Amino acid sequence: MLPESHRERIDVVLVSPRNPLNIGAAARAMANFGFQRLSVVAPFAPMWRQARSAVGAPELLLSAVESATLAEAVAACTLVVGTGTIRYRKPEQPVVTLPDLAPLVARELARGGRVALVYGSEKHGLTRDNLSYCHLLVEIPTDPRQPSMNLGQAVAVCLYELAVRAVPAPESLQEEPATLIPSTTSAAPSGRLELLAGVIEEAMQVAGYSPRGMQPANHHDLRLLLRRLALSAHDTRRILGLFRRILWRMKRIPVRKDKSN
Amino acid sequence: MLPESHRERIDVVLVSPRNPLNIGAAARAMANFGFQRLSVVAPFAPMWRQARSAVGAPELLLSAVESATLAEAVAACTLVVGTGTIRYRKPEQPVVTLPDLAPLVARELARGGRVALVYGSEKHGLTRDNLSYCHLLVEIPTDPRQPSMNLGQAVAVCLYELAVRAVPAPESLQEEPATLIPSTTSAAPSGRLELLAGVIEEAMQVAGYSPRGMQPANHHDLRLLLRRLALSAHDTRRILGLFRRILWRMKRIPVRKDKSN
Repeated sequence: MLPESHRERIDVVLVSPRNPLNIGAAARAMANFGFQRLSVVAPFAPMWRQARSAVGAPELLLSAVESATLAEAVAACTLVVGTGTIRYRKPEQPVVTLPDLAPLVARELARGGRVALVYGSEKHGLTRDNLSYCHLLVEIPTDPRQPSMNLGQAVAVCLYELAVRAVPAPESLQEEPATLIPSTTSAAPSGRLELLAGVIEEAMQVAGYSPRGMQPANHHDLRLLLRRLALSAHDTRRILGLFRRILWRMKRIPVRKDKSN
Repeated sequence: MLPESHRERIDVVLVSPRNPLNIGAAARAMANFGFQRLSVVAPFAPMWRQARSAVGAPELLLSAVESATLAEAVAACTLVVGTGTIRYRKPEQPVVTLPDLAPLVARELARGGRVALVYGSEKHGLTRDNLSYCHLLVEIPTDPRQPSMNLGQAVAVCLYELAVRAVPAPESLQEEPATLIPSTTSAAPSGRLELLAGVIEEAMQVAGYSPRGMQPANHHDLRLLLRRLALSAHDTRRILGLFRRILWRMKRIPVRKDKSN
């Protein structure tokens, strides 16, 4: 089983859940498998902390963190995993099945990272904007004829799998799973990547690189790119330094209307 | 993933479920993982087939089998697995954790058997009498501080595990899991064991072996014993023949009041 010190670094994040009973059911499953950190983003019902379905887990609901945005909820996480069925859109990041997720999570925890499992609302799942904060997507291997799971049941299945199988492997036996960041360095938390994205975007604007109409699309692509690069904390610090310096330089130079380009 | 032909030989059996929403949730999880055979024993609410929680699985509820007793529900099954937390009583049969169940189920299916997963009522779980029909018990590895799972979530977790991992192993690689019946013979279905138990009990009574006051206890122990022996269909047929012959002989001999014994 997953050691306590590792469970403490797995967050369950519910984005815009509509039914408080489902929040309670998620909390109950968390308590069943020994997880404590619940995060609720923009819940629909204000009284969700009183959900009666949180059998044996009322404290977990009371100590849950409520945030306005997913960016805020996962700011400290180094591996953000989106859940759901990938059917209506072409995924913009790697997709793994749940049995293949466990070794990736084990490795992220082993190097001191923090993992978020992100669930979308009951009706629509995660939006494209939500997904842009995810490093990868996980699919529960359901029957194609009936893929849509109940929220509480999906949380239970994922946590069961991680509790039983995201166990730290003995160093000698550890197979190198297919992740992008070398296991010796620590990954940049989501909040740092957002900060970096902001500075890069400002640089793009000051440089006159990004036409105004393209800004939302560029913003989205940049967020995905920064996660795909799997930057370490160290990488992120250096790139951030570089772009800040560039910005500072650019702001000192008056913009010339250069017709030749 | 588990092939369709194997999924068709796994029954989900809910004993005395109180809340129709939980029956519906179980049906939904079954549809999610491609299972079809739901059995409901002595349900509390008469209108359970209309449960709205069976999202995407209304036909599954309509085609579910309702029985009055667990004996009836599992009569055709060769491996009956009781679920729940073993906390208040010393188990009378082998206990495995869910990750260890998959190879046992895979083997039973590979030799043509039929498996039942049996869930007790939400409040009390399986009774001692229910458990006497089980060949083994499975425990979902939950946190000891909060072991009690929601029924629909427990069904989802078990079916996920079996769908992903009770996969038939290639013959050459198949490790011999610790079961009692050799893999070449087929196990006796539960209903045949009940028939045998009845004949043996009648023989006990006719032989004057079993004091009346002990009959319920002997009945329980006999049922457990027959399952622990893991009799093959062939064994069962022979023992049944033997006891029928004994009964016939005994009934022809007038009972002598023998004071010496």
